[in-house]
Amino acid sequence: MTQPVRLAINGATGRMGQALLALVKDDARFMLVAAIASPGSSKLGQAVGACEGSLSFTHEWPAADALDVVVDFSGPAGLAEALTYCESNGVALVTGTTGLDATFAQRLSASAARIALLRAANFSLGVAVLTRLLRQAAAALPDWDMDIVEAHHNRKEDAPSGTALALGEAAASARGTSLRESAVYAREGRVGPRAQGTIGFAVVRGGDIVGEHEVLLMGQGERLELVHRATDRSIFARGALEAAHWLSGRDAGDYDLDAMLADRSSR
Amino acid sequence: MTQPVRLAINGATGRMGQALLALVKDDARFMLVAAIASPGSSKLGQAVGACEGSLSFTHEWPAADALDVVVDFSGPAGLAEALTYCESNGVALVTGTTGLDATFAQRLSASAARIALLRAANFSLGVAVLTRLLRQAAAALPDWDMDIVEAHHNRKEDAPSGTALALGEAAASARGTSLRESAVYAREGRVGPRAQGTIGFAVVRGGDIVGEHEVLLMGQGERLELVHRATDRSIFARGALEAAHWLSGRDAGDYDLDAMLADRSSR
Amino acid sequence: MTQPVRLAINGATGRMGQALLALVKDDARFMLVAAIASPGSSKLGQAVGACEGSLSFTHEWPAADALDVVVDFSGPAGLAEALTYCESNGVALVTGTTGLDATFAQRLSASAARIALLRAANFSLGVAVLTRLLRQAAAALPDWDMDIVEAHHNRKEDAPSGTALALGEAAASARGTSLRESAVYAREGRVGPRAQGTIGFAVVRGGDIVGEHEVLLMGQGERLELVHRATDRSIFARGALEAAHWLSGRDAGDYDLDAMLADRSSR
Amino acid sequence: MTQPVRLAINGATGRMGQALLALVKDDARFMLVAAIASPGSSKLGQAVGACEGSLSFTHEWPAADALDVVVDFSGPAGLAEALTYCESNGVALVTGTTGLDATFAQRLSASAARIALLRAANFSLGVAVLTRLLRQAAAALPDWDMDIVEAHHNRKEDAPSGTALALGEAAASARGTSLRESAVYAREGRVGPRAQGTIGFAVVRGGDIVGEHEVLLMGQGERLELVHRATDRSIFARGALEAAHWLSGRDAGDYDLDAMLADRSSR
Repeated sequence: MTQPVRLAINGATGRMGQALLALVKDDARFMLVAAIASPGSSKLGQAVGACEGSLSFTHEWPAADALDVVVDFSGPAGLAEALTYCESNGVALVTGTTGLDATFAQRLSASAARIALLRAANFSLGVAVLTRLLRQAAAALPDWDMDIVEAHHNRKEDAPSGTALALGEAAASARGTSLRESAVYAREGRVGPRAQGTIGFAVVRGGDIVGEHEVLLMGQGERLELVHRATDRSIFARGALEAAHWLSGRDAGDYDLDAMLADRSSR
Repeated sequence: MTQPVRLAINGATGRMGQALLALVKDDARFMLVAAIASPGSSKLGQAVGACEGSLSFTHEWPAADALDVVVDFSGPAGLAEALTYCESNGVALVTGTTGLDATFAQRLSASAARIALLRAANFSLGVAVLTRLLRQAAAALPDWDMDIVEAHHNRKEDAPSGTALALGEAAASARGTSLRESAVYAREGRVGPRAQGTIGFAVVRGGDIVGEHEVLLMGQGERLELVHRATDRSIFARGALEAAHWLSGRDAGDYDLDAMLADRSSR
Repeated sequence: MTQPVRLAINGATGRMGQALLALVKDDARFMLVAAIASPGSSKLGQAVGACEGSLSFTHEWPAADALDVVVDFSGPAGLAEALTYCESNGVALVTGTTGLDATFAQRLSASAARIALLRAANFSLGVAVLTRLLRQAAAALPDWDMDIVEAHHNRKEDAPSGTALALGEAAASARGTSLRESAVYAREGRVGPRAQGTIGFAVVRGGDIVGEHEVLLMGQGERLELVHRATDRSIFARGALEAAHWLSGRDAGDYDLDAMLADRSSR
Repeated sequence: MTQPVRLAINGATGRMGQALLALVKDDARFMLVAAIASPGSSKLGQAVGACEGSLSFTHEWPAADALDVVVDFSGPAGLAEALTYCESNGVALVTGTTGLDATFAQRLSASAARIALLRAANFSLGVAVLTRLLRQAAAALPDWDMDIVEAHHNRKEDAPSGTALALGEAAASARGTSLRESAVYAREGRVGPRAQGTIGFAVVRGGDIVGEHEVLLMGQGERLELVHRATDRSIFARGALEAAHWLSGRDAGDYDLDAMLADRSSR
């Protein structure tokens, strides 16, 4: 039998952190080594889970050689600390933190030369498949107008979602352009007719919607709608754990879910 | 038998104008007296319809006593002329021109003291019913978050659509507030959590979509979606003619489709 | 301070029963007196909730005067027992059991002469509002074709859902007819053109979909879609507890959620 | 310059026939040689189009060597005549007639050994792309439940639509099975839990809906919806003419739109 993967969760008191903790508890593939919270968290020192024995929320990173992989859903500051730790100790890193600026993105790319790094804006398998379909549809129907509508709960603070932006980037790339050149983020007032080749974004916020993304490809007299609906946040945690398991022990490199799907389907 | 209603169409060379001309031709309730185009139109002087006899596109308004009602889908400048004509000659006016500023809106309200005026941002019967349903749902579920998504063809120049704004105003009013106080027209970047009681708008543009409006009412663990889809532009022309027929001969006043529906259902 | 409502849950080991138990634990308005399971349940005698003290799943009904209200989500056999108990002891009954035959429905109506009885096929507030909107839309657009599409998880055993049938009955009634006269439950093969005035049903089953209902009202060139999506089963339990609280101490009668909404909004 | 393709339209007085006639009139790639109607049609002998010169609706097929391709949207009886003619004269045949029995399907396959035959249940480019996407999604998510919902106007006589069945067949094939083994055409009453691996169909009929198809792939906590909406019947005629142009002069064989797309994208 193989050894369980030794895991730390960074951002362990957040929504995604809690979902990961709940899943890891019952998953024999993993051994939870650390549940890391931000320095100011009120939960530091508290036990992880009501019935659990020793493990408590902490801000101290484990010693060298104690970890195989870190799963990070903490935010930019937390991710910076995780990166430093992983690079120093040769630990693999799975991260779902979004809203990073260009400098940070560059640092991540550089890190991927030294550690196995898997990033995704959205860890659901459904979104990964949607992204693949979207690339093909965008290329097959190059003249059709494309817009992306996304909906999330009323506490979400950024817009559009990281997933919507990632979908847009994939579609733009399939058409030989980039989101930077083609994105339209808001339409308000006398905006004039739609510019050919742009990709528009529209944002809905409300209730406790977990996350929905709809890509519209609109032609003359017909259209396609490619939609993903998440109704249970556990899909992201489940996907992140799949990714952590796959990434553990892998060579340094800049990976994403598509690479994981491709590797799996080639077996 | 009753006399047919004598009608002028203002903005006759536009999309709505053409749709009205197509319907009026076969509708015995109406006699088309004038098809009015803007001063600079290249179609001035051309015959209206391939097989038609005498009537041509014109920029000259008919003589006094020649008209019962004007149907206007021309734009702010054209509407201003129509208003002047209708007030001088005591002619009823149906208008679907949107994108008017506050001053213009005030002028329209003043005119309604002297002529029968019916305005709508959207002349479909389905939208009129949707508006009624929305008022009730917004009041019955006062704590649920509300957003409005609308989609139109890629040539539409303003956003959100007049219909989306009218739906938002109806919903805000049902909750004892106004769109001015509660509208959020764009969400881009670090916008923070959704403010309680706001009404968000999201805009899709593409292909030849005639017009779709979706109101989302989002609670905890459930939501309502109230959707109208128009697939044929003739519904607006058909509704505008219904309104013109109903308005002809009526007392001065500020009417809308809801008033017409209420009057009809009370017979 | 008012006394808490003394409550028994019938069908306590089922999905709805579990959701009710989870909510009641933290709700000071209620005191849980009994968690009743079917005679053959393997959980009989087990503690209700990991940390709970004395209460265990049982098949014995409480003594007289121990209960104010029973909330039932058990199935026809369980409901029959609950009815007998409630009638004998003058206890109010909230039930969400569906799939009852005509004889059983008659018995329920008879019981309502002696006890306060509230029945619903769906206890969500959103569905109750949808039902109200649907009645009006069906009446306002009498010539538009109407179909109802519903989607549920892959373990659901009956079709269409009780909620879909209740929506259809409400719409039929608003048009002066009944579901018996107008329902079309399947379309397969050479079925011929749609008969005017019918109400069609379409059923989707898959994944873990909690419950979605879409009513389509389809005219010429336009249509309305009235949609409810439940993403968390707790909404039904929450609504059932609202109903239990409202029903407790009320006079005998045959109530539904609409009556509760009407009573509340008239305060 | 190339010679225009010499074309006959079979079923010329039907909806599709009319749409084809309207497009061909303005399309320099084609020369319309015959507009063929059924023997009992009241339009036989009438001119095709108000302003047209000589061509009239007829039931007589052209002489040998007068045609390059027949486009057929006539029905089983009409298609049988077209097949006989095309085989005798070596003329290519594009057909969109659906609802054929097994014997007829066999005859078509046999004919494809002698003439170039292109059949499709749906001639829209969007549906062709949807079919490609569906094959991949069905294979990539083999454990997700799949249902297909389709909606058409209230005059449509068969159910599910030919397009829905073709989508189902494509999806079943991508999962290594067939529609015959996996289709569930109706769910009514106590049908029990969903059988793993089945493909369910749900049918909506109403108004003047041109044609909508939605494939749902439903997992745990998430799902994909792949939707095509046609809002203008001209897309089918446009696609059929594309197919006729591509098929003209081609070797005998059994073709479909996918073959055309593949051939085009390989240039």
